[in-house]
Amino acid sequence: MASSEGNKLWGGRFVGNTDPIMEKFNASIAYDQRMWEADIKGSKAYVKALQKAGLVTQNEMEQILTGLDKVFDEWSKGEFKIKPGDEDIHTANERRLKEFIGDPAGKLHTGRSRNDQVATDMRLWLRDTINTLKELALQLISTMVERAAVEIEILCPGYTHMQRAQPIRWSHWILSHAVALSRDVERLEDIRKHVNVMPLGRLFFFHFWLNSVFNSMCLCTAEFLFWASMCLTHLSKMAEDLILYSTKEFSFITLTDAYSTGSSLMPQKKNADSLELIRSKAGRVFGRCAGFLMTLKGLPSTYNKDLQEDKEAMFDTYDTVHAVLQVATGVISTLMRALSPDMLATDLAYLLVRKGMPFREAHSCAGKAVYIAESKNIHLSQITVEDLQTVSPLFDKDVSSVWDYNRSVEQYSAPGGTARSSVTYHFGPTLY
Amino acid sequence: MASSEGNKLWGGRFVGNTDPIMEKFNASIAYDQRMWEADIKGSKAYVKALQKAGLVTQNEMEQILTGLDKVFDEWSKGEFKIKPGDEDIHTANERRLKEFIGDPAGKLHTGRSRNDQVATDMRLWLRDTINTLKELALQLISTMVERAAVEIEILCPGYTHMQRAQPIRWSHWILSHAVALSRDVERLEDIRKHVNVMPLGRLFFFHFWLNSVFNSMCLCTAEFLFWASMCLTHLSKMAEDLILYSTKEFSFITLTDAYSTGSSLMPQKKNADSLELIRSKAGRVFGRCAGFLMTLKGLPSTYNKDLQEDKEAMFDTYDTVHAVLQVATGVISTLMRALSPDMLATDLAYLLVRKGMPFREAHSCAGKAVYIAESKNIHLSQITVEDLQTVSPLFDKDVSSVWDYNRSVEQYSAPGGTARSSVTYHFGPTLY
Amino acid sequence: MASSEGNKLWGGRFVGNTDPIMEKFNASIAYDQRMWEADIKGSKAYVKALQKAGLVTQNEMEQILTGLDKVFDEWSKGEFKIKPGDEDIHTANERRLKEFIGDPAGKLHTGRSRNDQVATDMRLWLRDTINTLKELALQLISTMVERAAVEIEILCPGYTHMQRAQPIRWSHWILSHAVALSRDVERLEDIRKHVNVMPLGRLFFFHFWLNSVFNSMCLCTAEFLFWASMCLTHLSKMAEDLILYSTKEFSFITLTDAYSTGSSLMPQKKNADSLELIRSKAGRVFGRCAGFLMTLKGLPSTYNKDLQEDKEAMFDTYDTVHAVLQVATGVISTLMRALSPDMLATDLAYLLVRKGMPFREAHSCAGKAVYIAESKNIHLSQITVEDLQTVSPLFDKDVSSVWDYNRSVEQYSAPGGTARSSVTYHFGPTLY
Amino acid sequence: MASSEGNKLWGGRFVGNTDPIMEKFNASIAYDQRMWEADIKGSKAYVKALQKAGLVTQNEMEQILTGLDKVFDEWSKGEFKIKPGDEDIHTANERRLKEFIGDPAGKLHTGRSRNDQVATDMRLWLRDTINTLKELALQLISTMVERAAVEIEILCPGYTHMQRAQPIRWSHWILSHAVALSRDVERLEDIRKHVNVMPLGRLFFFHFWLNSVFNSMCLCTAEFLFWASMCLTHLSKMAEDLILYSTKEFSFITLTDAYSTGSSLMPQKKNADSLELIRSKAGRVFGRCAGFLMTLKGLPSTYNKDLQEDKEAMFDTYDTVHAVLQVATGVISTLMRALSPDMLATDLAYLLVRKGMPFREAHSCAGKAVYIAESKNIHLSQITVEDLQTVSPLFDKDVSSVWDYNRSVEQYSAPGGTARSSVTYHFGPTLY
Repeated sequence: MASSEGNKLWGGRFVGNTDPIMEKFNASIAYDQRMWEADIKGSKAYVKALQKAGLVTQNEMEQILTGLDKVFDEWSKGEFKIKPGDEDIHTANERRLKEFIGDPAGKLHTGRSRNDQVATDMRLWLRDTINTLKELALQLISTMVERAAVEIEILCPGYTHMQRAQPIRWSHWILSHAVALSRDVERLEDIRKHVNVMPLGRLFFFHFWLNSVFNSMCLCTAEFLFWASMCLTHLSKMAEDLILYSTKEFSFITLTDAYSTGSSLMPQKKNADSLELIRSKAGRVFGRCAGFLMTLKGLPSTYNKDLQEDKEAMFDTYDTVHAVLQVATGVISTLMRALSPDMLATDLAYLLVRKGMPFREAHSCAGKAVYIAESKNIHLSQITVEDLQTVSPLFDKDVSSVWDYNRSVEQYSAPGGTARSSVTYHFGPTLY
Repeated sequence: MASSEGNKLWGGRFVGNTDPIMEKFNASIAYDQRMWEADIKGSKAYVKALQKAGLVTQNEMEQILTGLDKVFDEWSKGEFKIKPGDEDIHTANERRLKEFIGDPAGKLHTGRSRNDQVATDMRLWLRDTINTLKELALQLISTMVERAAVEIEILCPGYTHMQRAQPIRWSHWILSHAVALSRDVERLEDIRKHVNVMPLGRLFFFHFWLNSVFNSMCLCTAEFLFWASMCLTHLSKMAEDLILYSTKEFSFITLTDAYSTGSSLMPQKKNADSLELIRSKAGRVFGRCAGFLMTLKGLPSTYNKDLQEDKEAMFDTYDTVHAVLQVATGVISTLMRALSPDMLATDLAYLLVRKGMPFREAHSCAGKAVYIAESKNIHLSQITVEDLQTVSPLFDKDVSSVWDYNRSVEQYSAPGGTARSSVTYHFGPTLY
Repeated sequence: MASSEGNKLWGGRFVGNTDPIMEKFNASIAYDQRMWEADIKGSKAYVKALQKAGLVTQNEMEQILTGLDKVFDEWSKGEFKIKPGDEDIHTANERRLKEFIGDPAGKLHTGRSRNDQVATDMRLWLRDTINTLKELALQLISTMVERAAVEIEILCPGYTHMQRAQPIRWSHWILSHAVALSRDVERLEDIRKHVNVMPLGRLFFFHFWLNSVFNSMCLCTAEFLFWASMCLTHLSKMAEDLILYSTKEFSFITLTDAYSTGSSLMPQKKNADSLELIRSKAGRVFGRCAGFLMTLKGLPSTYNKDLQEDKEAMFDTYDTVHAVLQVATGVISTLMRALSPDMLATDLAYLLVRKGMPFREAHSCAGKAVYIAESKNIHLSQITVEDLQTVSPLFDKDVSSVWDYNRSVEQYSAPGGTARSSVTYHFGPTLY
Repeated sequence: MASSEGNKLWGGRFVGNTDPIMEKFNASIAYDQRMWEADIKGSKAYVKALQKAGLVTQNEMEQILTGLDKVFDEWSKGEFKIKPGDEDIHTANERRLKEFIGDPAGKLHTGRSRNDQVATDMRLWLRDTINTLKELALQLISTMVERAAVEIEILCPGYTHMQRAQPIRWSHWILSHAVALSRDVERLEDIRKHVNVMPLGRLFFFHFWLNSVFNSMCLCTAEFLFWASMCLTHLSKMAEDLILYSTKEFSFITLTDAYSTGSSLMPQKKNADSLELIRSKAGRVFGRCAGFLMTLKGLPSTYNKDLQEDKEAMFDTYDTVHAVLQVATGVISTLMRALSPDMLATDLAYLLVRKGMPFREAHSCAGKAVYIAESKNIHLSQITVEDLQTVSPLFDKDVSSVWDYNRSVEQYSAPGGTARSSVTYHFGPTLY
């Protein structure tokens, strides 16, 4: 039908009709309308550049700017009506502009391909997105740092391989995740720099330059998706730790009711749903990244419609990271306890090293001591000096100095260490 | 707020409030409401089973069934109103049921965990989904077979490595894609069998049996996502072929206007957007599969909230495959031409083999003939017999028999061959 | 250099040299030599078919068969020498055959493209592979079933969301993983059927039939890679459970020294390395699957060299699954203990249901009881009847019947239930 | 057997034997031996730091340094013998050191966990790797730039959606890929900065600091794998373009024999194997990235054996990118031709814009002109002025100025444009 084709940008030569399923398949307005603000901003900058280049008159420019402001108003009031022919946000805004100001609206498209426009809008949108996510990440980091400062005196077991190792400060655990997030923020800033190259600044270049420019936007999108995957992978690890720590068996922490749910069948349970959801989202977001890279693979260069997949991936990823960072910030408000003596086997080995034994041999002796304790079903700290001396004559009653948790934690006072001074070192302006 | 907690299934012991961001993060009603019909069907079957087991009375059962019918009516008329506390479709339907019939509504939950209910609903939904997609795939296959039957006389180049090889029937090309799709249908039927194990048939088993049952639903979901990835990967290959064939340079086919779009900047262009979108969707769907498997990896057994990721992945995948199959069916309505002589070099080699030369040597001779033709910048068929005899004295003027396309195609008459009889062999009821 | 090109199948027309880096990039002999046996088997069947079709004489066939036997001998004795020009196993075997029997060797290639040959070899190889993996999986399953039978009396907590739920039999946990594996075996058999369509049975069909045949081999490879991903994802969940259960905090099980390692720095630790490696391999294998699908996406139909990626993916996946199944079989030889009372809150709710209360309300009452117990810092079983009656007057001293674990486990006697009879039901020939 | 356990770092307390399959499953020596040089370098730096800290004497340090030099010598001469108990490169080197110098060797391990050592070695190795790949990428870029400079006068069609658009300079096409690669080099430098934080510089920090340090190495590995995926995705697009351009139908370029192969069955074919392999590798490498992220997802923090998957992924990725960059550099040595008139429809539209018509309307007019040309089966340049005037009275005989390719290319002289001056602008020291 001529009238339904009439407001499509490529309407000129087509005689057949579009299959309605195809029309829906092709249309992006359902999701790209969230770039309405970026699209209007971009067009306003563009028409000013067109005027400077003498391609529209002062009067035309003013008409267009006024018209764009009206379109803006409709969107911000929630009054903009999407019509059947509006296949994407760009068509929709131009259609509305034309309804407001008539013919001059057509001039806005001079020398600007749809792809230029899309790339510009996405850059503007992604730049804002990055700023927002950075803010939220920093908020999470500062929540962690504050909490670590308050709870500096609390000790807990450190784990590797999910087995108890040496005691650490609880703050140490928190800060290790804050450090990971800080790295994520650093990398997000790198991407921001890459995004911040505005094609609009290069108006009137031949559109084939887009070869490279567009590639670079694709690369930014892919980078952003991967960044989000890494950031949520970091948080999936934190979530896994906390889910463990909140089990009955570990009982280090309890989640507040605001971030947990009960079971419909088993009333005594309190499930760490918030953390399980956080853990799951690393998969979802990486799926978006994987899907987009698979779509990119082997495409001929320049624009192909396949690239339309970028937007839903980006929007869904943004929404997901946005929610995860806020929920994670909410979750970091819990408690902890517990400590066990055999984490001190390493300290036992070091005692022997200090008495001149090579480390490998000292390590072996400490292992034998653990074995004796297990055979007798006692704690390591309960082994008698006599028993220890069967392992090595170097053991003496000064071994009791080892059975002191706080001392154990305080002895590592280099940067990155567990001593109070080392951990509080992180409370300054940078975390690195 | 007590009242907002009141209609949550786990409301009993919580004293704190839920963070509204967490509430949204946790809620699935925004997407799982599309299972409303499966949920009501499942509950109707369940209450009948409860009555048989003596856990609800005949009267209670009737009240519940009538109430569920009212809920069904509201959904089908688009009048169902989702309220703030409706975190998923199951809560929503139960809340509404209670508003209709009061206390007996509570009995519907006896011995059924939410996870049982979700698993049942998903099975019912996925079973219908598979039926629909199978219908659409069969429709695409039969469109291909019909077209192949009509155009059985049309020859075209066959390609490997995107280089012209021997001539084939155009129908042959079409049917190769129909065969791939037939395999996809076969596999879809396998999944249907796996899905068709209804937990509802096993009412009142201890819910921990869900260990295995639920795993099996997860496996079905993962299988479905992978199936969709393979199916769309097949169609991405068909799309790639057709995009190539529709270039100016190949010019085998032209897309109708209904499945292509123009360029906003370059009016002479007619872009194969429909095919590019089809090609891109393999990435999108595989991303969903990758995301879901990553979410599954390393989860402890039984239910964890992480598994909530299954539904959006499944719904989006279904919608995508649904659209792709229909658009692909629409696209298969185009035309073709072209054929070039040097595809016949293989036939030249076979001529020598028939005269007793070992294949390896014959192949080498044909290669030399191609080299001569290229040096003289003529077609292979224009080489003189004298020139050919410098390559091998076995060449004679019967070489002219080789320069006949139709003969070339007809000589392969075994099943799977290019002869008319071999290709039409596929037009029967099965494609294998 | 002419001589180095001389034994390449496509050597006829090339005049330039191959870049040595390109030669290595292109060659697959480094990894596809493991198909040496399948390649010789396939060639022996093929030459017999050629003879029947009158394309080689009886005498030529016998020479070729004898020659192939000699090649076989060399490989099985580890004496086969790969030479510089042997770019793949097929070229290598043919080169050696020619050295043994001279000219007739060339006839073996009649009517068989390299792609036919590769596809046949891969089918033969994959068929054997599937048989081997099926054996190993069945061995793991029967180890699990035996163990479950022996330890049928042992109770342990069941978990959802990593929170203790109701008590189950330890055998129940084991068998839930055996059931998952049984499903994997089922699906492996489905793939075996798909693989078992031998192109060799269809000798002399026109090679373009390979359109479909080859696609179908690609599909088999992809299916196998996905199968392996799902199988290892299942085992990653089992590994995660066991890693948890082996922590000091859970202390349900201890790994034998044969499947764990110590820490070089902390002698008291005993790390579940075997389980961590099993957990990790789901990622590795899925990466192979993802990589292969990404390679397939958007390829034009028929053969493209990109498809060479299938073999390394398949071999590495096979080796990985092969090792994982054996190590997992080794690991399943450990112990367990522990049980806690508040898993019985659900039973408390059921008590009220049996007294006529709607389930939703009963569930809420049980929740309140848990809350009281927590406030008083006592176990649920220590609440007085008086306290319980403040929650609901229906509570009576028969509540003590709930505080009995074994009863709790035995009450679910339907198929899939936790009762002794339900669990032993699985020890028969099928697991489903 | 005690003796086989004897040289394992964790040998102290174990009494059972290790399953040989488990031993192989656990061992990494088969692949991590390629870090032998990094391992020795790291240990030499470490012992010097130990001496400064007073933990080994001057004499012990000298013995250790001399011993390490001997180990180095053996590796570099290919004389190092791996023994059964050498489970990784670190154990192997220490075992050999001990054979050379006896007891003092044990002191090298003081205060250094295996994980510290692995992380240090990987940083050293990855730093070198990045340098090498950067060199190779720069070599490819400069090959492209040189070629673009030489062939600046050659015009060719520009494509979007694989449909001919406007004419461009061939150099423009080349440089668009060089620009993409330049971005890849930029990002590689970013990763280099992240890798370059040496834990060795922070000797004697408490090993739990590794929480963060190790995370950061994981992040570096993941970043490197993703970088490689993006870089090869870029090259897969270039490969796809060139494969297209090398088809008979496009015939823009021909590959030299050194980078193509023939068909064993069809002598006339010349397959772009090198490019197909390049295209395929994006999948392979991304599979490694996907696999590693899936392995990372949901791991508890600090070290788990799962992380051992990092090394094979990194090594295979390095080898792949290393080969691809070299082969791609080799391939970029080919030729081109062709140009078609209807690419000029955009210029036709611009002619009308310059005469005052709004762009949207001008675009529609140009579309109608294309439609007329197609209906009459003539080239756009053959339409009479009379026919054009039926579309718009603004058309005049100055329309002939549009039918000039070189003019078409030269008119876009802004940065990024197709004019000679714009393209040569890229030949300077930077490409951005």
